[in-house]
Amino acid sequence: MRTFKLTLAYDGSGLVGWQRQPEGTSVQGVLEAALSRLEGAPVTVQGAGRTDAGVHALGQVASVRMASPHPTGTLHRALNAQLPGTIRVLAVDDAPPDFHARFSARSKTYRYLLSTAAVASPFVRSYVWHLPERLDVEAMQQAAAALVGTYDFAAFQSTGSVVGSTVRTVERSDLVVHDDTAMGRGTGGLSGPLLAYDIAGTGFLRHMVRAIVGTLVDVGRGRWPPAHVVALLGGGTRGQAGATAPAHGLFLVRVDYH
Amino acid sequence: MRTFKLTLAYDGSGLVGWQRQPEGTSVQGVLEAALSRLEGAPVTVQGAGRTDAGVHALGQVASVRMASPHPTGTLHRALNAQLPGTIRVLAVDDAPPDFHARFSARSKTYRYLLSTAAVASPFVRSYVWHLPERLDVEAMQQAAAALVGTYDFAAFQSTGSVVGSTVRTVERSDLVVHDDTAMGRGTGGLSGPLLAYDIAGTGFLRHMVRAIVGTLVDVGRGRWPPAHVVALLGGGTRGQAGATAPAHGLFLVRVDYH
Repeated sequence: MRTFKLTLAYDGSGLVGWQRQPEGTSVQGVLEAALSRLEGAPVTVQGAGRTDAGVHALGQVASVRMASPHPTGTLHRALNAQLPGTIRVLAVDDAPPDFHARFSARSKTYRYLLSTAAVASPFVRSYVWHLPERLDVEAMQQAAAALVGTYDFAAFQSTGSVVGSTVRTVERSDLVVHDDTAMGRGTGGLSGPLLAYDIAGTGFLRHMVRAIVGTLVDVGRGRWPPAHVVALLGGGTRGQAGATAPAHGLFLVRVDYH
Repeated sequence: MRTFKLTLAYDGSGLVGWQRQPEGTSVQGVLEAALSRLEGAPVTVQGAGRTDAGVHALGQVASVRMASPHPTGTLHRALNAQLPGTIRVLAVDDAPPDFHARFSARSKTYRYLLSTAAVASPFVRSYVWHLPERLDVEAMQQAAAALVGTYDFAAFQSTGSVVGSTVRTVERSDLVVHDDTAMGRGTGGLSGPLLAYDIAGTGFLRHMVRAIVGTLVDVGRGRWPPAHVVALLGGGTRGQAGATAPAHGLFLVRVDYH
């Protein structure tokens, strides 16, 4: 048996998420169906991050064990030929036998896109949280920076979650203004100006990124000062943080391994 | 009666184009239906450019005459509330009584997006012509620059077109590499690197931009040297130019008025 590492991008809009479900289209389900056809036997894939319904990926990673004798390039092309255009395999690589997409991961990076344009661009409306209002970006940037470190993120976990420890390490947390105007750079003006929040860490609680984004938006609205975020890290409850931001603005950007 | 100037963005993916058709959804049809409801009487709109089926707009302009007593801001909000999210009104302005979106236009700017990524990004697959190959961008840029000026563009007009003169003036024609990587700038990595071809001019023949793009791609593939494009401007025929590039990579970016 060989172990493969797959790197994937997908548009989560019409999907029930990464994980196989009784109903609806999941990335795992579609991928396993395609790989099982290629293998001629049932195949199970492991994903690095179980993205929720509506969440997108620019660089999700999956691992799979198969007997396939084909070169990785052949598998790559055969796989994309079977998958819908909304799910793309970016790379297929041979991996060590003990490689596991989730357990071997060292850190993950997520991005959340916000648009404060008066009118939502038709081209990115499924990929950004549209907030047609004035946000205090500097205050949001201050609050974002305060999250870097090892803290108890219990206030940013969805209620009802049961995990051993709610302490997590955030390695990067910053909010950047992307200027993509009609005649400017970026995606040729498709998106208009965006706010992109990037967060990287060794592990994330359920809905943690979206709860952080909801809280940063509250800071941007002047509901709380940036210091409120710091206070929450000292052991706040879910009700003291902001609402969970919508799924469709969130992207799993990359997964790093040792 | 008042005259209004509407500025619009739309995703042409599911549309039959700008112009009202017996079947299918057109921008003009949807817009006239919404405006007629607001006016309480049938209303006709004029568009600056009759974009074909599948062609998008970042800044189409339309003119309309209405008796509406509402401030432009109210009309703007009421209109967007009635239109689908794929068609957005970016601005509503009062215009002089003789303003006509098409006849008053001084110049139009189009953009065509190409992606040479090995795998097409799921997020821009409806907005770019995906050519997973190596193109000679410098040769394409040379050819693009040669189109600026007043020339006979007959070789770049769809066959069967009947117009008085095929002489047109191109004011701008350039190809720019947009670098939008996963952790880079632009639209937060949604598109991957793109080639954006921008062309502005006082008038365009039918399918002219798409025929030019098809020809530039042939130059990029080494089928012809950049000088071939110059030769075509001296009175070439449609068969001597490249194929018509697909509609879904084309955007009407802006319309300028005196």
